[in-house]
Amino acid sequence: MAGRVILGIDPGLVKTGWGVIRIIGHDLTYVDCGVLRSSANASLGDRLVSIFTGIQRLIHHYQPIIAAIEEVFLNSNPKSTERLVMARTAAYLALAISGLRISEFKPNEIKKSVTGNGHAEKRLVSSMVWKILRLDQANKEDFAVTFPTDATDALAIAICLGFFSSTVP
Amino acid sequence: MAGRVILGIDPGLVKTGWGVIRIIGHDLTYVDCGVLRSSANASLGDRLVSIFTGIQRLIHHYQPIIAAIEEVFLNSNPKSTERLVMARTAAYLALAISGLRISEFKPNEIKKSVTGNGHAEKRLVSSMVWKILRLDQANKEDFAVTFPTDATDALAIAICLGFFSSTVP
Repeated sequence: MAGRVILGIDPGLVKTGWGVIRIIGHDLTYVDCGVLRSSANASLGDRLVSIFTGIQRLIHHYQPIIAAIEEVFLNSNPKSTERLVMARTAAYLALAISGLRISEFKPNEIKKSVTGNGHAEKRLVSSMVWKILRLDQANKEDFAVTFPTDATDALAIAICLGFFSSTVP
Repeated sequence: MAGRVILGIDPGLVKTGWGVIRIIGHDLTYVDCGVLRSSANASLGDRLVSIFTGIQRLIHHYQPIIAAIEEVFLNSNPKSTERLVMARTAAYLALAISGLRISEFKPNEIKKSVTGNGHAEKRLVSSMVWKILRLDQANKEDFAVTFPTDATDALAIAICLGFFSSTVP
């Protein structure tokens, strides 16, 4: 298929959102999105392995050539930050081991890139993601059901990289 | 070979120490140790991949059945803590993906287990590692040259797990 495929990742230990888009020139089109979930009963090791292998399967299936992953907000709770960094690293390692070029964006960079406002609300980010990928021309109710927030966020991350890379020859 | 093989890991982004010991009953014996180094010029992704694949090679070679890894001290510098957690996760994931049972110990638990004092100095930890593994009966000068601190620390981690698991049937 023509164009470059971009994989966006919104990492988390419980839910890791993923979004795949295609870029042809300045045009971004939707390919697929979803959420990798890990069982709350699983060990930390098994949860990390499920993120790692889940991302590997996505790479194998969609063959992206570049990837973007959200930076982690290092908050005041060291233990929860550590868990989030571990989940993010499992995803990061799956991208790196496949030789993908990885871009990292802060949450406010992603929001700004998609909506023009680094402090935009979730709802505005979602509606802009749909608009940019022309998903708003289809049945919105379906998307509300089939697009969980983490998947939409991952599409926003992919769009952010798409905007950057469409200006690079 | 008889006994259970234990792999100890002292994780770090620049240097990851590793130590392999064998436990037969209550007896701990030295197998091997070393340090995985990543190039300072490499990308973060490549450094994480080199830790991950390095640990995978050790597992393949020494066939441990249990592993221990040091917990990370979450210090006041969020960025350096994040890098350390990422390095540790690369090692952790390599252990988990091989199906190894992973034990985690805090630095002071390791020191206490090996020396009896949770605040022991590095030098005391080293000399106790040598004593426990009966390496002090050989030429000490050789060890000073061939055993970097990170490798000795990794042996201490393996010993800590060895002491715990020798009391478990």
